[in-house]
Amino acid sequence: MKKIMNDPGRFVDETMQGLVLAYGNRVRFLNGDERILVRNAAPRPGKVAVVSAGGSGHLPLFTGYVGQGMLDGCTIGNVFASPSAARMADMIRGCDNGAGVLCLYGNYGGDKLNFNQAIEDVSFDDIRTASVLGRDDVASAPKEESLRRRGVAGIVYAFKTAGAAAERMMPLEEVAAVAQKTCDQVRSIGVALTPCIIPDVGKATFSVGEDEIEIGMGIHGEKGIEVRPMMRADEIAAVAVEKILEDMPLQPEDEVSVMINGLGATPVEEQLIVYRKVHQILTGMGIRIFMPHIGEFATSMEMAGLSVSILKLDPQLKELLSDPADTPFYTNHNKG
Amino acid sequence: MKKIMNDPGRFVDETMQGLVLAYGNRVRFLNGDERILVRNAAPRPGKVAVVSAGGSGHLPLFTGYVGQGMLDGCTIGNVFASPSAARMADMIRGCDNGAGVLCLYGNYGGDKLNFNQAIEDVSFDDIRTASVLGRDDVASAPKEESLRRRGVAGIVYAFKTAGAAAERMMPLEEVAAVAQKTCDQVRSIGVALTPCIIPDVGKATFSVGEDEIEIGMGIHGEKGIEVRPMMRADEIAAVAVEKILEDMPLQPEDEVSVMINGLGATPVEEQLIVYRKVHQILTGMGIRIFMPHIGEFATSMEMAGLSVSILKLDPQLKELLSDPADTPFYTNHNKG
Repeated sequence: MKKIMNDPGRFVDETMQGLVLAYGNRVRFLNGDERILVRNAAPRPGKVAVVSAGGSGHLPLFTGYVGQGMLDGCTIGNVFASPSAARMADMIRGCDNGAGVLCLYGNYGGDKLNFNQAIEDVSFDDIRTASVLGRDDVASAPKEESLRRRGVAGIVYAFKTAGAAAERMMPLEEVAAVAQKTCDQVRSIGVALTPCIIPDVGKATFSVGEDEIEIGMGIHGEKGIEVRPMMRADEIAAVAVEKILEDMPLQPEDEVSVMINGLGATPVEEQLIVYRKVHQILTGMGIRIFMPHIGEFATSMEMAGLSVSILKLDPQLKELLSDPADTPFYTNHNKG
Repeated sequence: MKKIMNDPGRFVDETMQGLVLAYGNRVRFLNGDERILVRNAAPRPGKVAVVSAGGSGHLPLFTGYVGQGMLDGCTIGNVFASPSAARMADMIRGCDNGAGVLCLYGNYGGDKLNFNQAIEDVSFDDIRTASVLGRDDVASAPKEESLRRRGVAGIVYAFKTAGAAAERMMPLEEVAAVAQKTCDQVRSIGVALTPCIIPDVGKATFSVGEDEIEIGMGIHGEKGIEVRPMMRADEIAAVAVEKILEDMPLQPEDEVSVMINGLGATPVEEQLIVYRKVHQILTGMGIRIFMPHIGEFATSMEMAGLSVSILKLDPQLKELLSDPADTPFYTNHNKG
């Protein structure tokens, strides 16, 4: 196993230390707890806080998005494992500015269980909360069971729009509604070419055949919907768009943002080749594309592969997407 | 071979098409030539143009840095191959705003030969040029032969500072002096864990042993200075800082920027773990760190490994580094 690390048991702590050493002008640990990251800015009384949580191993997701215009706080667990309810409660208490806290996270069992516990705990402190879950992975369950679907890279769009709504001083209900609308209007599907290595385990915990590609594999190696012989980039793009549009039909004149998300080891060149075809298919249908996102947004460490996400926009989401953001791994100054 | 692409012979063209489809609000092809990318902004009469060129396969280097505050134009060749002198000349002509053109590129034989030819060609059109070459890789030649050294990720700092100097409407001589100072004050060294696959070739053209790491390997797989058994992250950081400081001694109170550059397949988590140790070593010596850069800046497609660069700052370079930039793969709005 070749991973650049020291003690595997210190992988997450040392990553977090590196993040705060590098970006201490924007983020800090909450009360010295190295698993809870918060914005390093003076609290704004009356501003809704947007927080998230999840397992490690997906950078920039989750902690890379703490900062202006996105998350106020984020707590993370070990690689691919949920953080504790106690830490989530500490984070919620530490981030509340008196206007309530939106808990925005992916639909995974551990995260859900722990967030529900944390929310119950902080309710005794009279902290108002709302919860919105990302469930964008169309490959993880059929449409009629969409409540079972996993959240993957699409949640980054919700961090962006809900974070912007909170910066605009919208009340908790409206910030939550923005997050919910974003999550409702985004769909993703991924393809995996190789597995990844969990530091503590030291080897891959799942596999992808030598000349094969798995369609719909999750970012923790969850089984996909189909294994095929290695596909061309244009086929990958076509299949991804097809699966997404089956689930969320689009009409000519609709406007969307497209995210091509590298899972870790896939070169930007290859991401752009896939973007090219997605762009051609969508614009060929008369659909307009606004602020495409290409790069690594939600990874599985060194997994090769990528995901395609499509967010259906409306005027409100477009404005919020365009608002400024400044976090360690997402910067925007109105790219439009 | 698992690469996400279509026809290997179209790898570069389709990458470039994807780039322009995605970022057409910022970049465009010059006269429809898909290998020459220029800023999609109205020319500013009297502004010095900063241009670069090099082989493909290193995104975000080179074409990902065309945009406000960095490059005005960039032409690229096939994977790991120089573009032609004719295209370089077309680019220089297309980017000149009457104030001259700085050609800023890495010290590679083909690029140098072709740029020299192009510069001779455009001199007949009365276009003033200056040339500055990146030679930051300390592993590529000993100090007394530093003119032979290769340029690697450190050149991104020169794109940033020279690009900012040009935006400030400095004359050609001063923009070139800023670029030269940046190149003189930056040192890099890389470690490679795996090779990468050239699309046309279809397999790795060099190898790294199963449990080995190569110190000093170049971004095209050029031989490094030493092969060792796989090292811990802290050792990698210590060796990198040692090799750089042997070459460019630093004193307490010196201020530097540090770049941890993923070569393609190395997770951000691992980059941050290395940053952590580099930060500890440098701050332990009383050296201050300004605007660290962590992520992928100059890759070798899916190569695993990373490079460490240290740029010694002065007040001018600090200001220019802080200036705004907005390109497809580098955005800054005064992170300071």
